[in-house]
Parts: sequence; structure tokens; C-alpha cells
Amino acid sequence: MRMDELLKFAPRPTGAGDMFQLLRDRQPRTRSDLATLTGQARSTIAARVDLLLSSGFVAPAGEASSTGGRPPATFAFNPAARVVLAVDLGATHSRLALTDLVGTVLAEHHEPIAIAEGPGPVLDRVVELGLDLLSTAGRPVSDLVSVGVGLPGPVEHSTGRPINPPIMPGWDDADVPGLLARKLRVPVLVDNDVNVMALGEHTSEWPEVDHLLFVKVATGIGAGIISDGQIRRGAQGAAGDLGHIAVPGGLDLPCRCGNTGCLEAVASGPAIANALANAATSADVVALVRAGDLDASREVRAAGRHIGEVLAACVSMLNPSVIVIGGVVAEAGEHLLAGIREVVYRRSLPLATQHLRIVASRTKGRAGVLGASAMASDHVLSAAAIDALIS
Amino acid sequence: MRMDELLKFAPRPTGAGDMFQLLRDRQPRTRSDLATLTGQARSTIAARVDLLLSSGFVAPAGEASSTGGRPPATFAFNPAARVVLAVDLGATHSRLALTDLVGTVLAEHHEPIAIAEGPGPVLDRVVELGLDLLSTAGRPVSDLVSVGVGLPGPVEHSTGRPINPPIMPGWDDADVPGLLARKLRVPVLVDNDVNVMALGEHTSEWPEVDHLLFVKVATGIGAGIISDGQIRRGAQGAAGDLGHIAVPGGLDLPCRCGNTGCLEAVASGPAIANALANAATSADVVALVRAGDLDASREVRAAGRHIGEVLAACVSMLNPSVIVIGGVVAEAGEHLLAGIREVVYRRSLPLATQHLRIVASRTKGRAGVLGASAMASDHVLSAAAIDALIS
Repeated sequence: MRMDELLKFAPRPTGAGDMFQLLRDRQPRTRSDLATLTGQARSTIAARVDLLLSSGFVAPAGEASSTGGRPPATFAFNPAARVVLAVDLGATHSRLALTDLVGTVLAEHHEPIAIAEGPGPVLDRVVELGLDLLSTAGRPVSDLVSVGVGLPGPVEHSTGRPINPPIMPGWDDADVPGLLARKLRVPVLVDNDVNVMALGEHTSEWPEVDHLLFVKVATGIGAGIISDGQIRRGAQGAAGDLGHIAVPGGLDLPCRCGNTGCLEAVASGPAIANALANAATSADVVALVRAGDLDASREVRAAGRHIGEVLAACVSMLNPSVIVIGGVVAEAGEHLLAGIREVVYRRSLPLATQHLRIVASRTKGRAGVLGASAMASDHVLSAAAIDALIS
Repeated sequence: MRMDELLKFAPRPTGAGDMFQLLRDRQPRTRSDLATLTGQARSTIAARVDLLLSSGFVAPAGEASSTGGRPPATFAFNPAARVVLAVDLGATHSRLALTDLVGTVLAEHHEPIAIAEGPGPVLDRVVELGLDLLSTAGRPVSDLVSVGVGLPGPVEHSTGRPINPPIMPGWDDADVPGLLARKLRVPVLVDNDVNVMALGEHTSEWPEVDHLLFVKVATGIGAGIISDGQIRRGAQGAAGDLGHIAVPGGLDLPCRCGNTGCLEAVASGPAIANALANAATSADVVALVRAGDLDASREVRAAGRHIGEVLAACVSMLNPSVIVIGGVVAEAGEHLLAGIREVVYRRSLPLATQHLRIVASRTKGRAGVLGASAMASDHVLSAAAIDALIS
């Protein structure tokens, strides 16, 4: 038997990191609870609890009730022990948040950027702002354990590198994790913005839902797919690319991809603005709808119907129980959702729609940073990562 | 801490079933290999190997090469130890196979049925044929460890009961697992036929592919989705329902579901037959194409294009690396695939199609029984099931 085969199967030593996994649900437990849960000797438990306490990842959580004698001490996961930097980069804006290990925002900043300036200037600014946020929150740099980044383009999940991103000139194959890790000295996780937003919405608002679709309607249109509780990226990480699906019954308008009749060509923010005399951008469209402009409202609802045609196909295909609509165009409010619901509930079969909810994003523009935070935290709270951090 | 909470986390005792998981890859190993892999004491290993050997699930596999002294004995998973019954039920046909634990067919039978006779008569016949196959293969009933069944309608995965199956009158909410288990006294796994076929094609022909779509083109049109290596069923088990997706650019023909423009209304076997003067069934269509009938070939290719329109959306959504086309209409050969490929490669983005293969089913009508066998075997080879079987 070869060594690499042996290693493949070798059980990792059951250490403090494994014990920590039992505590991630944040319930306080006694040493005796942990001994019962793991079947390990009291002395082993005591040593591991001491290690986790001294690292800060676990903290005292008061005394358990006692049936007599001195009540035993309890311990629980301490999400404040470390911090992660969550970075949501768009074509023209950035939002950064410093959070604890369960996504509580400790400090936050957003500002306009030009992603087209390239990875050098943009990521330098991210590092600068990240250090500012640490300082604002009063946390030393040594408390930072990882960084999560959402990018507005396709990302190779295994390497964190953008792949031919259409709106990110200069970023193709850029080593984003390497560039950030060189300055911040912690692991960096990167994914495309829609997957990250899906993760943020799922983690913070719908943790109990196993099948969720997050749809971003903005300059582009894309989806993040949660199936059986996990993000599904497909073979090349290209899953969820709704924008270039042909709309059934849609107009045969030319699309920037070279095809005609794509969803983006009829229902994206720019497409809606294009149909209106007095709007140039997605933000203009949202402002008009909010001001009660009837033409704008009608165009947004029509866009919703086109999106609904494509989402009806997604519902038949994936049978989600929740579809969350986000992105800047969704800020126009109920008109978009009304158009989407109208078509999806008409077009899909009853078995797939009877328990389906189609709702607006609840994270108020924070889906990206919440998802980046969840991605970054999840990486450092695994058994192996905890063992490495506290050893 | 409550007992149910303790049980939720309690590690299962690491027994023979766990050790057996290491052997499922069918590589021969020595007791010493197993001690290295598990970190367990030689005496523990020896006892568990003895248990697995006496159960037959593991068998001697010759001697390992030795660097001196007596060469150590090796052991490997023995797929012939038990058998499973694989059942593929359609609207008008059934196919049953008795297989070993890795899908090798030991005995097989197919015959016409009328699913509309209801679960009583149909499942009685399944039991009768299953016992015949055991007898043909010379295996005692006690060798049978589980049954896998594919049904031509939606199935609630957790209970194995059909849910409002449109072409299975009398089967709604029928306790299929209970009815079979009462007579055969083994666990019964049930899923819809397309998921079972996807599993069969994946297990037997594409085990190394993580993202695969199996499309059945017959009286209905449906898909089984393999994503990250597993069947994805969605929230109600309704995922993969391609037949009632509206075809972009399709005709507005009425569909039996009550909507118009559904894929089934333009590209199913009956829809193709309907467009031909001299065909009444899917089988007629296949026969005409095979006989070189140009009208039939042209209609099959046109149906392929319609299917391609919907699959292009699926490719954008799921980014599979293989699409397998099966079902009776696929037996018409290359015309169907040519139509599908033509549209998918034109309509989908390069990132999603550059490594995409669209191929015909390779299992020659056996995808259903191979999938039912895999589903049944997988269930009984888990650590817990093995522990229960040999205790």
C-alpha cells in the first residue's frame, strides 16, 4: 500500500478542533457533557477544554444546574474570539465589514471604486480599509484570522482566480488570494459575488432552508444556487448564469454576449433604463419607481415577467422552496416581485410551487459582506483549521 | 443536556461496518494496512476482520508481496456476498434484475405490464418475478438484502410513496416500500424512474464525473440531476421536471398539463408521432427513423432542437460536464442528438460548453435497473447497515 493511499484514509487525530465542532452550535456544555458526547477520557477532555479556553475560541458560560454538590462549569463557543474581513467588490462600489465569527458586523465601510483600475490598486485599497476597520473596532491585526471576497465575475473556486471576467479588465487569472494574503498573512477565500450573496442571505435569513435560489438583478442577472444546503457551482464554477438564457416569449433583442433574446438584454437594469426616456442607469430606474413614475413601474414589472419566465424554468429544474430577489433593481420594490410571481406561479407545476416563496432580499445590501464573512469564518472554524490556529 | 441531544452527537461505535467502508474501493488490504489506516489495535482489527470474513462481505484476496518472512494475507470486499433486486417499472413495461453488490447482473427479466392495474397486482407480480430470479440465479432468499425500485412518477423520497403520479392511477400515496417489504423482508428504496436512470448511468458509465444531467425522452421528458456527485431532488423531490418548461421560440401548442408551449407538447415521443402521418407511438417513430424515413428523421431532429433550447437553459443554470440522452426516442439515434447539440452549443456561453459532452445513453435500456441496483446496494453497504447485518 502506497503512502499517499494511506494518507488519504488516515483518520485525523481527534483533537481540540474536533471537540470544538461539537460546540459550534453555541450551546453551553460541561466537561462531563463533552466526555459523554465524545466517549473520551475525562483527562483528555480537560486538556482540550483548557487549550480551547486559552485560545479564546471557547469561553466560560456560567454554571450548569446541579442535582446536588457544587454545580459544574459550562463552556461555549465564543464568536468574539477572532475577527474576519468581509469584502464585497462590485464594478463601481465596494463594501467592507469586519465581523466576528458568526457574522456580527463590528465595523463597516463602503465607497465607490473602479474595478477596472485592476487588482493592484483595488486590492491595495482593500488592505488599507481592512486595517482601518480593525483599528476602528479596536482589534489588533493578530485577531484577524481570514478574509472572504466576492468579485463581480466568474471565479475558479479552487484557486480563487477570476476567469475571463467580462467587466473586470486586468483581473483575468489574477492571484487575488495571494495578493491579499501577502499583506494580511491570513487565508483568503474568493468566490463570485452572486454565490457570496446567496451564502449571505442563506446563512443570515434562511438557515433552515435546504433549497434556495438567490437572484441578483442589476447590470447583469445571475443566480446563486443552494441545493441540499450547499452552494452548487457546477463543473467550471459557471452555474447560476441566468443572464444569457433565452427568454421564452421574449423579444429577439441583441445581447452583449453575441446572442439574441437573452434575459439580460430585456430585464437588466440597463435594459429597463434603455426603455425609459428619462433614465440612464439602474439607480435612475429605482429612483423613478420610488417617485411613483408609472412608465418606470410598468417597465420594471415587465422585466419581472421576463425574469419570471426564466425562473419558472429554474423552478421546474431545481424545485427550490425559497427564491430571494436581490440586486439594485430589486430596490425598486414590489413591482419587480409582482411580475416575477405572476409568471412563475402560472408557468410552474403545482408540486413545485405549492410551498414556494418568492421574496425580496432582507439583508439590505449586506448579502455580499454577510456571505463573505460566512465563507471566511467557515474556513477557519473547521477542525483542522482550529487545530492549526491553537497549536 | 437532554438525552436526544446527546444521541444526536454521540459518535457511533467504530465497528466492523466502519472498517468495511475502507474496503469498499475493492483494493485488497492486509490486517497491517487496516491497523495503519484506522490507528486501531491489532487485536481489534483481527476481531473485525474475522467478523467481516464470517459474514462473507469480505473475502480472502491472496497474499501481499513480502519483504521477507511469510507473506501476509490480504482481504477485499466481496460483492458476490449478497444480492439485491433491481426493479424498473414503466407505464407499460417492467424490467427486473438480480445483481450482486456492485451491479453485476446475475439474472434478468422484462415483460409488458399495465401500471394502471394498481400497486396490488403490479407489486405482487414484482415479488413473484423477484423470487423466480433468485431461483434462476441459484441464490437462497436469505441472500437478498434490499430492493431498489424506479417508478414512472413523482415519489416522496423520504417515504418512497408516489405523490399524485399522473400516469399511475391508484398509486397515489401507496406504501410501495411497505407492500414489498412485507413479502420480501428487506429494506426497499424507491425513487422516480428518471432519478434512478441518472444514478444508473452515472454509477456504471461516468463514475468520475461530478456534474451530470440524464435526460429521458419518451412519453414524457424529464431529467435526473447529479451535482457534486449526488442526485439533487429539490425541496419536494420535483427537481428535473423539464417536460413542462416553456420552449423559447417554440410553438404555442396546448399541453396535457393545462399550459401551452411546454417542451413535452412539442418534443415528446407522442408529439413527434402526432406530426407524422404514419406513426402512432414513440416506437413507431424510432422504427421509421431506423428504416430511413426522411420525414421522421426531420421531425426527430426538430424535437432535438426544442429539447436543446431547454437544455441550453439547464447548461447555463447547472454547468454540467456531461449530458446523457436516454429514453425510447433516443433510440432513434443521431438525429435527436444532432438537434440538441446544434442548439446547446449555439445558445450557451463558452465557459459552460467548452468541456461539455452531450452523449447517448450507453446502458442499452438498463439504466433503470442499474440505478435501482446502485440505490439498493448503497443503502445496505453503509457502516450502520453492515453492523446491523452482521451482528
